[in-house]
Amino acid sequence: MSGPIRTAEVLSIGDELIHGSNLDTNARWLAQLLECHGLTVERFTVVGDDPALLQRAMDEACRRVDVVVATGGLGPTLDDRTREVAAHLAGGPLWFDPASWQAILDYLRSRNRPIPDSNRRQAEFPPGAVVLPNPVGTAPAFRVRIHRAELFAFPGVPREMKRLAEDHLAPWLAKLPGAQPIAQHCLLVLGPSEALLGERIEPFMIAEREPAVGITASGGLLTIRVVARGFDLDAARAACEVTAAEIRPLLGEWLLAEGEATLAELAVGRLIARNVRVAAAESCTGGLFSAKLAEVPGVSAVFLGSVVSYANDAKVTALGVEPQLLQQHGAVSEEVTAAMALGVCKRLGAQLGLSVSGIAGPGGGTEEKPVGTICFCLCLHGEVKTWTLRFPDLGREFLRERAAIELLAAILRHVR
Amino acid sequence: MSGPIRTAEVLSIGDELIHGSNLDTNARWLAQLLECHGLTVERFTVVGDDPALLQRAMDEACRRVDVVVATGGLGPTLDDRTREVAAHLAGGPLWFDPASWQAILDYLRSRNRPIPDSNRRQAEFPPGAVVLPNPVGTAPAFRVRIHRAELFAFPGVPREMKRLAEDHLAPWLAKLPGAQPIAQHCLLVLGPSEALLGERIEPFMIAEREPAVGITASGGLLTIRVVARGFDLDAARAACEVTAAEIRPLLGEWLLAEGEATLAELAVGRLIARNVRVAAAESCTGGLFSAKLAEVPGVSAVFLGSVVSYANDAKVTALGVEPQLLQQHGAVSEEVTAAMALGVCKRLGAQLGLSVSGIAGPGGGTEEKPVGTICFCLCLHGEVKTWTLRFPDLGREFLRERAAIELLAAILRHVR
Repeated sequence: MSGPIRTAEVLSIGDELIHGSNLDTNARWLAQLLECHGLTVERFTVVGDDPALLQRAMDEACRRVDVVVATGGLGPTLDDRTREVAAHLAGGPLWFDPASWQAILDYLRSRNRPIPDSNRRQAEFPPGAVVLPNPVGTAPAFRVRIHRAELFAFPGVPREMKRLAEDHLAPWLAKLPGAQPIAQHCLLVLGPSEALLGERIEPFMIAEREPAVGITASGGLLTIRVVARGFDLDAARAACEVTAAEIRPLLGEWLLAEGEATLAELAVGRLIARNVRVAAAESCTGGLFSAKLAEVPGVSAVFLGSVVSYANDAKVTALGVEPQLLQQHGAVSEEVTAAMALGVCKRLGAQLGLSVSGIAGPGGGTEEKPVGTICFCLCLHGEVKTWTLRFPDLGREFLRERAAIELLAAILRHVR
Repeated sequence: MSGPIRTAEVLSIGDELIHGSNLDTNARWLAQLLECHGLTVERFTVVGDDPALLQRAMDEACRRVDVVVATGGLGPTLDDRTREVAAHLAGGPLWFDPASWQAILDYLRSRNRPIPDSNRRQAEFPPGAVVLPNPVGTAPAFRVRIHRAELFAFPGVPREMKRLAEDHLAPWLAKLPGAQPIAQHCLLVLGPSEALLGERIEPFMIAEREPAVGITASGGLLTIRVVARGFDLDAARAACEVTAAEIRPLLGEWLLAEGEATLAELAVGRLIARNVRVAAAESCTGGLFSAKLAEVPGVSAVFLGSVVSYANDAKVTALGVEPQLLQQHGAVSEEVTAAMALGVCKRLGAQLGLSVSGIAGPGGGTEEKPVGTICFCLCLHGEVKTWTLRFPDLGREFLRERAAIELLAAILRHVR
């Protein structure tokens, strides 16, 4: 191979992606793997199973960059065409690999699964391809040279793709000479709008700055990302830290946390470190906050459980909220969220209780409490704090996401 | 414009996407909008904020297809570069639109928000652009001719993008002459592997078939999609129905439902139609099933609430499961899921109770009950049905998703 390997693209293949039925979650994962090995990911492309459009996209990508990682189109059915298209671009017919076919047979037999003849197709490879065996599924992956690029072709099933990329792509990347590793430092911010935060840190956001500083927004949570690149990873990390230290004092109370972990991971980590057992009472979020906690491996050490009290009756029977309180103040009130948090602490024996009740819409709003009004409570060792936020004009989905983020942030702000 | 408008691409712009921090959910939504107006979506492209790479991707897309829909890069900060790049490709400098600036000022003032000077940048447009006002945010969109394409540039915030696309893109598409609308029929299948289903319906999956038939997989749920295209939408729909009628008898008990709705929407619709009030007791899923129910507008008519009994103690205190039952059979057992479902029905006054308890891993597995063992119960009007599924080798995330899907499917299978 001539010259250092510096640039990469990810090519995701499948009608389910281009028709909008499934979200492409593979590309983001692969981008992070490629970047932490020092490659610059220049583009993601999604195409359907149409062979002509797939061939054009694969051809273009393999001319633009040094490494192309393709996912999808390796299944056993006739609409899976990655093998054929790669063979055409590599300049020859597919070849059959008896060892791969044997591995597929062994895999299916060990699981007492029927052996459709169509699986045989999965043991065919483009000319010059290196076979990358798949221990967790029937589709073997492969690596093949096309134009200037090394093309890796993985199955589209995320679990299989990740395993194969960890087994075969990561070690290959680790051996590349001259790759410039990337160092990154993230600051998580909750409170200001993106524009207001951008104004506050504008001097850092000019083009060509090193390290580069950018802002991303997701469900109301803003992430300031400081990125440096260099042959010396320690120097790049130090440069990130210098920039982060300049930005930090500009953020004040907006700053929630720093680092690569997700907000849920940070919140669970804090609870584990302080040995605080948590329970939640959720209304409008419908279990979303609990589900975010449960995503984090190891959460069972601190997460007792939750009550999703969607109906008012459930607030009374499952949390012990007084019916008069609901009548007097309404389900969306700080009085009721306080009773919900105290109730769930008592019933589940938690030191920390979190609760949320809001009007997610589209119906249910009033003049006094319009759609978008959300009340919260945090109850730590019996001490109660309630607050209300209003998000006018936001949709149902965003409101629930924003409310769940608010509770995760409350853990970081109050469990010290 | 010369010739009919037939092909489209979606271009998603942002460092948060290319670095893998955020998932691109806009492209799938736009693809569905474009397809239901008869355009063929050939490609999605994701690029970061780097102006050279953005320019190359936008230039290529505008040469390949008739309509390019771009999202992102319209924010107020310096790393938002869609306006400049589009202006360069359209062949002239940006122009300032005082009316757009006034609308931005009005928007911010009406919300008592500070007015950063950087927002002024959002009132600049490429030469020849048609301004598309934004009633739900500060970033106006625009439409401009570049090469053979009509380029629509929308903000990346999904809520704003959707509103602007509905206000400005959908009406524009509806007026296009000669667009061939697409008809689609979906069959939802749960049970077989993708390969086994593909084998069963293989005669329908050959290339060039009209209507086209494809399979997509998500969290264990398989969707058979039958797609026909034609100037006469009624004829295309009839052709889809003929193919669906041929496939249907091949599916037997695998077939869950048909139509465009999501599984959660179908399950909630069934509960509303039969007037069955539901409650859930979730262990390993951590609230994910409840959160999926709560996503559906109108669910409050039938969803009472849930208990997320993550810890064993919560199963006893919040659901009334007998401690001896837990000791004797373990938390992951059909005996315990039955007690959980009965308990939540009783406590919340539900006619239908659903429960799930499983070993999501990475820890907690035994020889008898390995990681991936999940027990379920459905209790309808006091009648109890329990079952166990095993998913060896699957990850924590997939298991939780698969378990939540199993409960939604159980509603469709048992609430008749």
